[in-house]
Amino acid sequence: MTTYDNLLRVMNTVADLGAAGALLGWDQETYMPDGSVMGRANQMATISALIHHHVTCAETRELASEIRDQLDGLADEQKRIVRTFIRDHEMAVKLPVELVEDMSRTAAMAQDAWKRARAASDFTIFQPLLEKTVELKRREASLLGQAAHPYDNLLDQYEPGLTVDIITPVFDRLRKGTVELLASVSAAQGSVSDSALYRTYDKDSQLALATEIIAKLGFDFATGRVDLSAHPFCTNFGKHDVRLTTRVRENDLRSCLFGLVHEAGHGMYEQGIGEAFERTPAGQGASMGIHESQSLFWENVIARSEEFWQWAFPRLQQVFPEQVAGLTARDFYRAINKMQPSLNRVESDELTYNLHIILRFEIERDLIAGVLEVADVPRVWNEKMQASLGVVPPNDAEGCLQDVHWSFGGIGYFPSYTLGKLYAAMEWNAMQKDIPDVREQIRSGEFAQILSWLREQIHTVGRSETPAEIVQRVCGRPLTETDFLAYVGAKAQDVYELD
Amino acid sequence: MTTYDNLLRVMNTVADLGAAGALLGWDQETYMPDGSVMGRANQMATISALIHHHVTCAETRELASEIRDQLDGLADEQKRIVRTFIRDHEMAVKLPVELVEDMSRTAAMAQDAWKRARAASDFTIFQPLLEKTVELKRREASLLGQAAHPYDNLLDQYEPGLTVDIITPVFDRLRKGTVELLASVSAAQGSVSDSALYRTYDKDSQLALATEIIAKLGFDFATGRVDLSAHPFCTNFGKHDVRLTTRVRENDLRSCLFGLVHEAGHGMYEQGIGEAFERTPAGQGASMGIHESQSLFWENVIARSEEFWQWAFPRLQQVFPEQVAGLTARDFYRAINKMQPSLNRVESDELTYNLHIILRFEIERDLIAGVLEVADVPRVWNEKMQASLGVVPPNDAEGCLQDVHWSFGGIGYFPSYTLGKLYAAMEWNAMQKDIPDVREQIRSGEFAQILSWLREQIHTVGRSETPAEIVQRVCGRPLTETDFLAYVGAKAQDVYELD
Repeated sequence: MTTYDNLLRVMNTVADLGAAGALLGWDQETYMPDGSVMGRANQMATISALIHHHVTCAETRELASEIRDQLDGLADEQKRIVRTFIRDHEMAVKLPVELVEDMSRTAAMAQDAWKRARAASDFTIFQPLLEKTVELKRREASLLGQAAHPYDNLLDQYEPGLTVDIITPVFDRLRKGTVELLASVSAAQGSVSDSALYRTYDKDSQLALATEIIAKLGFDFATGRVDLSAHPFCTNFGKHDVRLTTRVRENDLRSCLFGLVHEAGHGMYEQGIGEAFERTPAGQGASMGIHESQSLFWENVIARSEEFWQWAFPRLQQVFPEQVAGLTARDFYRAINKMQPSLNRVESDELTYNLHIILRFEIERDLIAGVLEVADVPRVWNEKMQASLGVVPPNDAEGCLQDVHWSFGGIGYFPSYTLGKLYAAMEWNAMQKDIPDVREQIRSGEFAQILSWLREQIHTVGRSETPAEIVQRVCGRPLTETDFLAYVGAKAQDVYELD
Repeated sequence: MTTYDNLLRVMNTVADLGAAGALLGWDQETYMPDGSVMGRANQMATISALIHHHVTCAETRELASEIRDQLDGLADEQKRIVRTFIRDHEMAVKLPVELVEDMSRTAAMAQDAWKRARAASDFTIFQPLLEKTVELKRREASLLGQAAHPYDNLLDQYEPGLTVDIITPVFDRLRKGTVELLASVSAAQGSVSDSALYRTYDKDSQLALATEIIAKLGFDFATGRVDLSAHPFCTNFGKHDVRLTTRVRENDLRSCLFGLVHEAGHGMYEQGIGEAFERTPAGQGASMGIHESQSLFWENVIARSEEFWQWAFPRLQQVFPEQVAGLTARDFYRAINKMQPSLNRVESDELTYNLHIILRFEIERDLIAGVLEVADVPRVWNEKMQASLGVVPPNDAEGCLQDVHWSFGGIGYFPSYTLGKLYAAMEWNAMQKDIPDVREQIRSGEFAQILSWLREQIHTVGRSETPAEIVQRVCGRPLTETDFLAYVGAKAQDVYELD
């Protein structure tokens, strides 16, 4: 056995444990009986601790040290896999296993407390566990090393290489452009009605239609499936077993349809990762930001385009003839792209969405820097909502308790959503150069070439390239907000028929 | 940390890994997409190997050696837990991890081959993998130590302490008694009709009724659930998460109803194990035989009794008024207890069932002893069917390919089913002494005291007593076939109205 073979064995074990952990998580959100929350928390903490052990133990340290001297002799693919592993290894060795277990167990309890807090709209139920989470994350950030901002070390876990100093000017320009656009749109707000979306839509028919659409887009049901859960997500246990979940609301057509297309975007990414990376740390998406660029590409660029509904609207009419009676494809396209400030991130439109993210980014950054206390989060949340969106939640359930992320310790995660939007707009510009008739293809319900392009450009390399490398290679330049602002500006102009 | 605390940590890790492995198995049979068979096989092999590692590694060996000297200082419960762990530890250290992984991976592939072989009714598709399985099991048996029969070492894994020499005379007397009874029954066969069971029964209504019944029996849905699978089973991930599966056949009322009651019997056992044993090797059923005694107790002793249907038949009439029109509770009771030789173990009655088991026991014993070749299994199967049941399968799908067990390496498992029947009859006699009006309670649809009795007598101790200890304590004597023969004889007499 060569050093690489031995290291591969370690990587396979870690990947298999990761798959088992992901299944425990999927099951908890879909089928697990309520009575087994504690048992599941223990199981997940054990798996996390074992993964940490295998990534950091003495044997692995030795292999990691040996393989650094043997890189020249490895094939290109092996080099990429090793590089990815070394990154995980170096990050993990900085964190004691007790912290990893504590984080995992705290997350399980915090999610439970968050659910109860949200149901009661009482932040104080969640507060002690959020305090514990922030404390653990501060410790984690400081253990991970010196950085201009301690929050950089958390950002880096979701988007390797991203820092506060990189993202701040991008977010500043994005906010400025968004606020300007929003002013133009607000003046024309009356011209777009979305009331048809909130009629009564049979749940089973909604789910069947959404499933039909993602199959048409290219989601492979031989290696994937769809289930229901309170909050939609995508997870996977290798590229051959990709699970999507969705929720269906009888009086909101958007929830299941766009939610499932979004998750299928994540799913098609995982299904498209190169076989060579299976059971290695490179066999995953490159980052949360790149992942979101895939889900948002399909959800927004494709499924919220007018061309898409020129193809899909007749099918929608077949399924829900009464509900959409009197509407044209263009009416429907305008309805699903209505842009206006709202309280809820998930339900917000493409334009105002990023303002929700920037608010969360600022709060997270300040919590980790120690300049904001957890107890002050509800007040600061509401002040920032007023300042940036001009609306204030009537209670914490609709305010700072609306998202699950902080409860599972996902601090540093939110910026990925906006990165995903910015990357998706950049990818869309690159794709239009390579596939000049792409809009025609969408109008004809042809998505094979679009998916192939994404596979070749983005999916195949998995995590073997960094997000910055992928963006540079595919789009010819680094992260920018300009493509997105141009894209959303053109859409606003079209939807609101601005001059 | 004391030695016990350290050992407990190892046991917790092993139990959590076991839960993750069980979830991977449950998911494979319920929701996993077809395309991920290989990935799942790898994941399960990794979990098996890790369990083996944690039970046998140097650190655990040292802890096991230390704790042997400290037994006097432990609380009674701790002593029992340690004794159970030491048993697993001593068995595991005899098996190299390569064998464990090979077994796990072979099982995954053999199950796939078995499914294909059965679908094509072609034993040769399964044969090479069964040969590999038998070879691995022979190696396993020989590594586990000296025994009068190598098969004893496999029996011992399912029913600690059981040997060929113990079981053979029991099985011989059981066969003799069964054949005699069968002769009397056959002469009166025309007097019992079961044709009503094969009318058309709406699947959803069947599942709803069976679910309602197991809830009434005492299965706790706060810590359990029911799903569909091709083959019914029960699995669990701790006592707070117990999963049952069932299948529903539109033209066979027995399959879902009695299948689900059977699995719920297993499930109530797991739900009843003492909290103190959670996340330790004692937190499981005592053996496969004791487990089957619980499932068969509820399925046969309770749900196939006349008293049960005196209570439940009116409800059945409500759900399926047309299908059971003209039948009385007694007619129905007689129909579900029709006794006649058939080809299929799962669908056979309480009397002839054991003949199917004895046949499998003899074949397994001879395969492991090396006096029967895998290639000869189909021929020997058919010869034995002719000799003991007087019927011969028309093909291998309905013959030696009918059961899943050999494909997952479960050689030594089958005798547990008959042990379960024998134990259940012994438990039933013990229960009737403690609860004199138990038949009245069943007739009134009251099952709480029955479940409490089983909880106290059998469930609570989990695996902290051996099956022999449990049977001796609860029934006042060791394993015997006499209670069962008396029980089934009385039922035959009643159902067939023999003199």
